[in-house]
Amino acid sequence: MASSGSQTKTRGNHSGHFVQPANPNVATMPEDVLYHLSLSTSTHDLPAMFGDVKFVCVGGSPTRMEAFAKYMAKELGLDHPGAEYPNICAGTDRYAMFKVGPVLSVSHGIGIPSTSVMLHEVIKLLYHARCSDVTVIRIGTSGGIGLEPGSVVVTQQAVDASFSPMFEQMVLGKRVVQRTDLDQELAKELMQCATDLPEFPTVLAKTMCTSDFYEGQGRLDGALCSYTEKDKQDYLRAAHAAGIRNIEMESSVLAAMCSACGIPVAVVCVTLLNRLDGDQVPPAQPRTPRGPRAHTDPRGHHPAGAQVGRGCTQAPWEVSRMNVPGLSEEAAAAASFGQTDLGSMGGVTPAPNRKEPPAIWVLAGRRRLHPKVCSGYFSGFSKSWCLPSVQALGLQ
Amino acid sequence: MASSGSQTKTRGNHSGHFVQPANPNVATMPEDVLYHLSLSTSTHDLPAMFGDVKFVCVGGSPTRMEAFAKYMAKELGLDHPGAEYPNICAGTDRYAMFKVGPVLSVSHGIGIPSTSVMLHEVIKLLYHARCSDVTVIRIGTSGGIGLEPGSVVVTQQAVDASFSPMFEQMVLGKRVVQRTDLDQELAKELMQCATDLPEFPTVLAKTMCTSDFYEGQGRLDGALCSYTEKDKQDYLRAAHAAGIRNIEMESSVLAAMCSACGIPVAVVCVTLLNRLDGDQVPPAQPRTPRGPRAHTDPRGHHPAGAQVGRGCTQAPWEVSRMNVPGLSEEAAAAASFGQTDLGSMGGVTPAPNRKEPPAIWVLAGRRRLHPKVCSGYFSGFSKSWCLPSVQALGLQ
Repeated sequence: MASSGSQTKTRGNHSGHFVQPANPNVATMPEDVLYHLSLSTSTHDLPAMFGDVKFVCVGGSPTRMEAFAKYMAKELGLDHPGAEYPNICAGTDRYAMFKVGPVLSVSHGIGIPSTSVMLHEVIKLLYHARCSDVTVIRIGTSGGIGLEPGSVVVTQQAVDASFSPMFEQMVLGKRVVQRTDLDQELAKELMQCATDLPEFPTVLAKTMCTSDFYEGQGRLDGALCSYTEKDKQDYLRAAHAAGIRNIEMESSVLAAMCSACGIPVAVVCVTLLNRLDGDQVPPAQPRTPRGPRAHTDPRGHHPAGAQVGRGCTQAPWEVSRMNVPGLSEEAAAAASFGQTDLGSMGGVTPAPNRKEPPAIWVLAGRRRLHPKVCSGYFSGFSKSWCLPSVQALGLQ
Repeated sequence: MASSGSQTKTRGNHSGHFVQPANPNVATMPEDVLYHLSLSTSTHDLPAMFGDVKFVCVGGSPTRMEAFAKYMAKELGLDHPGAEYPNICAGTDRYAMFKVGPVLSVSHGIGIPSTSVMLHEVIKLLYHARCSDVTVIRIGTSGGIGLEPGSVVVTQQAVDASFSPMFEQMVLGKRVVQRTDLDQELAKELMQCATDLPEFPTVLAKTMCTSDFYEGQGRLDGALCSYTEKDKQDYLRAAHAAGIRNIEMESSVLAAMCSACGIPVAVVCVTLLNRLDGDQVPPAQPRTPRGPRAHTDPRGHHPAGAQVGRGCTQAPWEVSRMNVPGLSEEAAAAASFGQTDLGSMGGVTPAPNRKEPPAIWVLAGRRRLHPKVCSGYFSGFSKSWCLPSVQALGLQ
């Protein structure tokens, strides 16, 4: 997969910028217990454990983030027979965290509050570990608006349910509003990767972040619904007219918190359905003769792994992607599995005067390699829950 | 443990009240895929699987809800050698669900959005399964305000960060406000159980529900903080003056959604610290000589089970409870382990004209037995994460 045409460059903020919380109290605490990660400054050597982290990739599902870590290990040449990728947060079941070289893969659960708790503690973790030049990328799932299912949206700006680029929070009982800008340069780099990966239709657009999956996103199929199909369509079409192309539940808090701490952040989500066409992911065709189909959680988790004996078919957007003219099923599968050849690239050897180990250089935005890593987002991402063969790979 | 003094009675709404979503569309859907539970009306026989559910007990942590299910199995005499309690939602890692007789034990993750998704789908599940006379109880953890750590709060009313009994949600881009009343009769019944269990200091009070754990609850130790200790103290003291005794992150959506669907709901939370004294759970003393201590997630998960080789001490509030005059450690442990004798009670045999199996009658609010079940909430609840011996019991 050619990547020589990319215009990727090292970002200016990758120049020894240490992670700093926007809270002076943290520096004076004798001990900082990161409860929801089951880590602490007094019981863990955080600089030794995490000091080399450069990329924090987050997503809702623990299983998916584990699969992503394993994918990145292969992609970075850090995988070897018998390698294990333990959950660093195994002491709690609130979140799961995996580390592969400079990449930290962390689950955040569903919604803004769950993501906020993780982010508060991960940002403090990066600070205590004296990490520098860290980039945060959310790899998520979403409902699309006016896009072919399976499309990828790189978020240009996160907006709320009123289409405003705002994150509203109650602090000491008062409404506090923060902006939700994402790192535009990083978004452009990710879009450049998409140019190199034409099999993943990708747009740069606004993403609507809501606090509910059903009524909050105008669905008609929740346990509560107080509006009509027309009301819903009017709302979704207004969102489309405002430049919104997908809806999810975490982007705004990620944008607000990372921006407040000076950490470049991006949000990259696949769309699992076109909300203008419906609320539930339509059935895949044909159903397997073995039994009822396995459902794809519209936020992305592929449940087949644990449903022993249940049939497994393509996710609908997978079918859609396979319909791209000229792209055979095999070619599509190969593409989504990231058939790249990192090992043969001279770029993995760092220049002698660089202190970072090779893997960091690989990920730090060097020309030719960065797009491949970014393709890893997409492929790890789709691989971890969309392809029926995920089970055969033993990833779940 | 005597329960004969209780005034428990069968509630009026326990008279063949079938669960109904507040959405007429659900009845007309040819298929309803409950994505985040990995269940569907077309692939699962929901009435056969769930038709006898009478109690839905929910809490944040999957591990805790599994431990609670196992506890209830013993408490109800449904446990037997080799019994397994599989996660019904094993096809997804979004939530975990366990069923023991008429009790469904479901995790909801952290925060309102995560809880909302689970509730939408569980309410639809109960409807599709044709369940009747269902009660929902959240068994949670919280920060206390002006209470001894380890106290239990039965929520009288859920309030927002402005101390108003409101749940605000964006629906089609517009703010919609719902009331957050809980079932007062159910709350009284739970308080009656507390009377029978003097070793668990329990209050009936307002609970503040926030959308953030750090700034949203006035903590000074998050990655972001824009106020002073005095600002925080002023806020928490104002909350106390308004009748609020604990803070958590899910009660208001539970109250609003269950009320809207006519389902009686209660919230019962332990307080893990007194927020007037600090933000982090203070260290337990003494530390074990074996190594660094295991931390207690302030929302309740005890991480010791998965941190092999790490020391395990009492949770701070456990130390506090042990200081109750006249209550030995052994007595406290025995009390929290629910030393009741359900098996010897004649009440488990249903009257001949009742269609429900015995276990339903046990749980359906019959005099003498209901308080014991409620004691199970408290004891399963504390047992599942607070007692060091939880590991020895093999519950985690």
